[in-house]
Amino acid sequence: MTRGYNFCSGPAMLPEAVMLKAQQELPNWRNTGMSVMELSHRSDEFVSVVSDAEARLRQLLDISDDYGVIFTQGGATLQFSCVPMNLIARGSGAEFLDTGAWSVKSIKEAERYGPVRVLASTKDKHYRHAVRAEDFQVSPDASYLHYTPNETIGGVEFNYVPESGKVPLVADMSSCILSQTIDVSRFGLIYAGAQKNIGPAGLTLVIVRKDLLGQTLPGTPSLLDYQAQIDQGSMVNTPPTFAIYLAGLVFEWLQEQGGVPAMQQLNEAKSQLLYDFVDASGFYRNPIDPVHRSRMNVPFILADETLNERFLAEADKAGLYNLQGHRSVGGMRASIYNAMPLAGVQALVTFMKEFERRYG
Amino acid sequence: MTRGYNFCSGPAMLPEAVMLKAQQELPNWRNTGMSVMELSHRSDEFVSVVSDAEARLRQLLDISDDYGVIFTQGGATLQFSCVPMNLIARGSGAEFLDTGAWSVKSIKEAERYGPVRVLASTKDKHYRHAVRAEDFQVSPDASYLHYTPNETIGGVEFNYVPESGKVPLVADMSSCILSQTIDVSRFGLIYAGAQKNIGPAGLTLVIVRKDLLGQTLPGTPSLLDYQAQIDQGSMVNTPPTFAIYLAGLVFEWLQEQGGVPAMQQLNEAKSQLLYDFVDASGFYRNPIDPVHRSRMNVPFILADETLNERFLAEADKAGLYNLQGHRSVGGMRASIYNAMPLAGVQALVTFMKEFERRYG
Repeated sequence: MTRGYNFCSGPAMLPEAVMLKAQQELPNWRNTGMSVMELSHRSDEFVSVVSDAEARLRQLLDISDDYGVIFTQGGATLQFSCVPMNLIARGSGAEFLDTGAWSVKSIKEAERYGPVRVLASTKDKHYRHAVRAEDFQVSPDASYLHYTPNETIGGVEFNYVPESGKVPLVADMSSCILSQTIDVSRFGLIYAGAQKNIGPAGLTLVIVRKDLLGQTLPGTPSLLDYQAQIDQGSMVNTPPTFAIYLAGLVFEWLQEQGGVPAMQQLNEAKSQLLYDFVDASGFYRNPIDPVHRSRMNVPFILADETLNERFLAEADKAGLYNLQGHRSVGGMRASIYNAMPLAGVQALVTFMKEFERRYG
Repeated sequence: MTRGYNFCSGPAMLPEAVMLKAQQELPNWRNTGMSVMELSHRSDEFVSVVSDAEARLRQLLDISDDYGVIFTQGGATLQFSCVPMNLIARGSGAEFLDTGAWSVKSIKEAERYGPVRVLASTKDKHYRHAVRAEDFQVSPDASYLHYTPNETIGGVEFNYVPESGKVPLVADMSSCILSQTIDVSRFGLIYAGAQKNIGPAGLTLVIVRKDLLGQTLPGTPSLLDYQAQIDQGSMVNTPPTFAIYLAGLVFEWLQEQGGVPAMQQLNEAKSQLLYDFVDASGFYRNPIDPVHRSRMNVPFILADETLNERFLAEADKAGLYNLQGHRSVGGMRASIYNAMPLAGVQALVTFMKEFERRYG
């Protein structure tokens, strides 16, 4: 079996150890005579899969009992609706920081549900840096402040947690959750699509401070009511059972690797290696303000863009997959989430050096 | 590897051949160097997985181009909201036939979005039969008529397709899709959670006549807008990629088995065997009107209910799993979807005979 290094922004590479364990257990999980995806979601066995996954996540992120953990569906895109449906009625409207494509989507969707104010945007700076702490002030009666700690497409990452006072801070952590230590108690709500740092597409994670709930808008589907999901242990209906099982395996793998601090160290080493190489090169370039560069998604541009196709084709041959940038921005992008080993980034740098030597 | 016979109502048994193929391909799909769940959803490879699955489904159910096929998330429960969000504004309100627990849930959820009228209910008959054709009349200006062709919990199945004239007929086929031939052109919309006859939990299928769309309620999340999903080939955002892949394998397996007509024949044989045995026995009993008995979910009661625990424990030992009835009704239930072979039902009948001999 030859597995390559997959730099896709999501669905992304998963740890090989997790893939092999899932493979081994697939048709007959723990001698139950069936696959984990064939277990009743209400069986003791599967309920233990969910509670084990939740316990591991709580340990990894040090989540207190003040917070509910929900395993749900629909990706961050559905959360763009769910967050205002559940929280916008608790204040005078939602406030946003706009740092790129995913911020914009979250803002547009929220506008359907109540007043929305964009406090600061780096759009006129071509999203080349994150919003700075001194550039906004949250209204004390705001329903919540929403931001995107890491913009997957632009490769822009906040290097601080925004101050929102008593206003709940809401973060779309789809592309950075579990990649660096965070203080969950600073947040009112964290959500993340699974397909980057957690598991397969089709699972979405919500971590929410329970005291914020209870003012859901009329017309909110029961499945999307956070309170109902917390009350029923993510089982308002049949949850995406196999995806939750895989997430549990990823959480276990993370614990074995030394948890989130070890991942943060690894992710800093990987991204530093790549940015240092790009910056030292006259052939590759990254346009983002160095203090706001993403440790998860590293976009770079070739000096000669006519070489793009050749770069991608040769990388592919070298087992370095999915380096094309997002279709909206072009260029290249290396997404280097938790499951990407240092050796993968080293192989990429070696390849990029050699490509530069031949075509630079 | 010893896989048993899993009679769970859902997540349900999947074909063993599908499980084994998925196992083999799990870490490295078609020599791509990655799992199918690690493929970019926008890659040519994965787009072909989706279009192949859709083409197979269209062939299996003979779905015309007048209909869009959507692979989405959230289960039937989220469709209970999505259907009115997308269709209720096109007429004077939604009309329902109530034949059990799932009908009731769909009605309650729809009431949040507009006028709802229950045309007929068999609740006062303890849901022991389906609504009969002569017991209701659809309003000509209704937005749609909704019914549940097969009630999973009660084990009640319509033996006809309700006549709704020009009013679109909407069916929750979660527990009967692909189990018998249907004329899709009779329906305005069909939806189904995957975890019974299609694939793993976390995938939901919607088949909708395209000319019915375009009057979505304000406040409908973009992900839940059928028109947007059709326009974007189920990729408004990252779809549940691995679940779609598995559904495609199930569709392929169905084609290999002889398609839906072969499944119908098998399902009739399986259910007939079980009902005949139950009816002939003084020890087991099924309360449903024989003309409306479900071919997918066969509930039965032991004459002596104090033997329930023993029955379940001994069945389990015999490799016959998950025969407990739904927690709301008790007793036993054998769910015998497409993936349950005739041999599984034969083994169950043999076990039931022997159990009756010893304890009857």
